[in-house]
Amino acid sequence: MPEANFDAAKDDAARNMVDQERITALMTQRYRENGGVAPRSGHPAIETMLNHRTVRSYLPDAVEAEAVSCAIAAAQSAPSSSNLQLWSVITVTDPARKARLADLCNNQKHIYAAPLLMVWVVDLARLRRITEIEAHSADGLEYLELFLTGSVDVTLAAQNAVVTLESLGYGTCYIGSMRSNPLEVSAELGLPPGMFAIFGLTVGREDPERPASVKPRLAQRAVHHTETFDGSQTAENVASYNAVMRTFQQEQGMPLVDWSIKSSERVANASALKNRDKLRGYLEQLGFAFK
Amino acid sequence: MPEANFDAAKDDAARNMVDQERITALMTQRYRENGGVAPRSGHPAIETMLNHRTVRSYLPDAVEAEAVSCAIAAAQSAPSSSNLQLWSVITVTDPARKARLADLCNNQKHIYAAPLLMVWVVDLARLRRITEIEAHSADGLEYLELFLTGSVDVTLAAQNAVVTLESLGYGTCYIGSMRSNPLEVSAELGLPPGMFAIFGLTVGREDPERPASVKPRLAQRAVHHTETFDGSQTAENVASYNAVMRTFQQEQGMPLVDWSIKSSERVANASALKNRDKLRGYLEQLGFAFK
Repeated sequence: MPEANFDAAKDDAARNMVDQERITALMTQRYRENGGVAPRSGHPAIETMLNHRTVRSYLPDAVEAEAVSCAIAAAQSAPSSSNLQLWSVITVTDPARKARLADLCNNQKHIYAAPLLMVWVVDLARLRRITEIEAHSADGLEYLELFLTGSVDVTLAAQNAVVTLESLGYGTCYIGSMRSNPLEVSAELGLPPGMFAIFGLTVGREDPERPASVKPRLAQRAVHHTETFDGSQTAENVASYNAVMRTFQQEQGMPLVDWSIKSSERVANASALKNRDKLRGYLEQLGFAFK
Repeated sequence: MPEANFDAAKDDAARNMVDQERITALMTQRYRENGGVAPRSGHPAIETMLNHRTVRSYLPDAVEAEAVSCAIAAAQSAPSSSNLQLWSVITVTDPARKARLADLCNNQKHIYAAPLLMVWVVDLARLRRITEIEAHSADGLEYLELFLTGSVDVTLAAQNAVVTLESLGYGTCYIGSMRSNPLEVSAELGLPPGMFAIFGLTVGREDPERPASVKPRLAQRAVHHTETFDGSQTAENVASYNAVMRTFQQEQGMPLVDWSIKSSERVANASALKNRDKLRGYLEQLGFAFK
């Protein structure tokens, strides 16, 4: 089979370039400070990503089947370690099932409201089944390495789906609380041992009356190191970001609290993990091992 | 600060749409079969992702600083669980350091050849430092959940960087073998306890004389389930994919081996994991816990 025409694709890309000024504005919007030097021109994909906002308010309109199919094709086009493809995805639109899953995800309101919930699954079960078909040993599946490989594979895939859905005009929100009650989630979705719903993703058209904003991030110098790690400026970088986030909280009418304090509270103790302190034990019950 | 002009962005997006025929061709290229129904029109970002190829042959030209900066801005724009931003990235261009890291990554040739190696790091150290500054307890950092949160955060970020770099005309390859010798990698990069180089990413302009091809994936029906999981067709789906991959191997002049056998061998036993069977112990030495 011939490959798609790359020269034609390059011509199209040249026509579609976004200019330096636009990219610079988007980078500055993200950091709330000079965002650094942008490339002279960039592909519109960059604009989609730099403009990402977490959308939690949805219109009830269904997500088109074509968009879901295209998003999953993009997800499968993401890199996969040794091409093992250690993931699956379950799309849930049935309101009753979606509500039961929302109940299991600490009752997050946007799951009830979203027309589509995608559940992203670390899938070691398919590979185990394959080793059974091939009458092959599969001791390697018992190691942390394979759990981590599957976790990375599914996350690369999901992020391609997010960029696709956003580029098609949808809003999304990852649901980490899908990990709060893994046994019940697995039962609800009929997952066999070796499958783990690592996160959900709500998808829908954003409610234009409740638009989300671009959340500022740590300055690039706080996360990017050249050649070797340098932590000497961490305290200064955190203090600057606390100030940036305080301005953002004021703009949004949110409670004013230092990012550093809020983040510390998130890991203060086991109970702050909202039942996810029990994740390891749940996963062992679901057939995962962490040698 | 005003946000970027979304209406203008929408106008631009309308001008830049890729048509249904092109997206359908790209989906069919990926699956080597009818790829399903594409959206009526799509953003060029979709084209970039569907056309992904793993590039291991690079020209020596340096990667522009603007491209690196833009890629990291896109990475930071990816969703982050509770906005904790549990990652860092180290960019390595020094040939001697890059060669030492390549030695630690099972001597992979494309690491020596690539002008840029990005090392993506799960970073619980910054948050631990923050809890120290705030004189706050941090027991939550001892749980598998936080290691997994950091792993997901850094992977979402890295994939945005990949899409950015590909959209700017660069080729990339993830380096999972960065996990084969974590203690030596941490020492080389000066990483403190609580930081873990989860994977590398080689970046450069593709050598046009050794172009990479789009690798086919499992059919979409093999990974996508609606409402609940259905594993009844796994054997058939794997057999079909073995046939697809055999055709691909023939086209590429690669050794002919069933994907299902090759994948089984990858997890046959501890030694097949190329030293990554020891990952858990190494990570505990690097300050991670998995309660």
